[in-house]
Amino acid sequence: MEFSSKLIEKAVNEISQLPGIGKRSALRLALHLLKQPKEQTRFLAEALLSMRADIKYCDNCHNISDSTTCEICANTNRNHQIVCVVEDIRDVMAIENTGQFRGVYHVLGGKISPIDGVGPSQLKISTLVEKVKTGTVSEVIFALSSTMEGDTTNFYIFKQIADCDIVVSTIARGIAVGDELEYADEVTLGRSILHRVPFDKAFKNN
Amino acid sequence: MEFSSKLIEKAVNEISQLPGIGKRSALRLALHLLKQPKEQTRFLAEALLSMRADIKYCDNCHNISDSTTCEICANTNRNHQIVCVVEDIRDVMAIENTGQFRGVYHVLGGKISPIDGVGPSQLKISTLVEKVKTGTVSEVIFALSSTMEGDTTNFYIFKQIADCDIVVSTIARGIAVGDELEYADEVTLGRSILHRVPFDKAFKNN
Repeated sequence: MEFSSKLIEKAVNEISQLPGIGKRSALRLALHLLKQPKEQTRFLAEALLSMRADIKYCDNCHNISDSTTCEICANTNRNHQIVCVVEDIRDVMAIENTGQFRGVYHVLGGKISPIDGVGPSQLKISTLVEKVKTGTVSEVIFALSSTMEGDTTNFYIFKQIADCDIVVSTIARGIAVGDELEYADEVTLGRSILHRVPFDKAFKNN
Repeated sequence: MEFSSKLIEKAVNEISQLPGIGKRSALRLALHLLKQPKEQTRFLAEALLSMRADIKYCDNCHNISDSTTCEICANTNRNHQIVCVVEDIRDVMAIENTGQFRGVYHVLGGKISPIDGVGPSQLKISTLVEKVKTGTVSEVIFALSSTMEGDTTNFYIFKQIADCDIVVSTIARGIAVGDELEYADEVTLGRSILHRVPFDKAFKNN
């Protein structure tokens, strides 16, 4: 791509570093910003800079937070003995949205994925194991995505806490609410039959 | 969406102001930036700010430029009597990429589109008409997209320069190179038959 201006070329190059945004989309975004008031670009740039510079992570659960203890960990009305292990803040937000979970979280910051160069040492696994071994936890719920990386991570953590006297569970896999059976894949359908629940309990808490 | 941090919420809100980026994509981009070195965010922010603050438009063709006369307008090897009318810098880049055009451009900055609140006065139409009326132009080529807005804009400009003694042309519409005839729409196919070219001239300059 040949640009008539070095300034727009630089902006396009920087924007297209973002995942899922190619040069053409980046140019579209740059031209959009040029058509908007200057303030919009300033607000965007300032928001990005202050986010990158000042964001903190909760000392306890490693979730993104504005202080060293996040609101969930600071909430004494929540059950701190039940720890839900998730990948990142998006999963925390998704589970919080359901309103079904009153325990606390532990944010790993990713999944074990040798292909992406992510090993156990880059994840917040040791602090989770420590937490479990000090005996303050009664249940660990694995809520990682059901991929090879997620399963590997679950298994890696499980091996280290298996001899502790706690409940280790994983979120239920099965047919999504509203889905047609005929379109479900075999593994999911198989698991949903294997882990069937008593009918009268299926609607509990609903 | 409930965020655990005001900083990330602000960043997500600003990113999602961009066209085609929703809150979820914005969060994905923000989390990506948090995982990258701080410099990447700084470079991105600085590139956006300097683009917005320092970008200039060519006095002659209104294309985005780093100086008050763009490289194309400053190039004396180009034919300044042939003016190609386009919507924005992307069209200039697309036509320049073909290597088939040695004239100069006139960038309107948009198309007449009452539904988007864009009238003729917001576009660089008067300077084009002036240029034509001073007699320095021998041909005007319309290269706007073939939509109702594009056709309206072409016609609006044409009415104002119709009595000048110049050639007014429009880029050829037809079946794209490599396209199958059976999938072409009727209007395009119809026009391509109506405006057929002598076979020996079809490969000229190719």
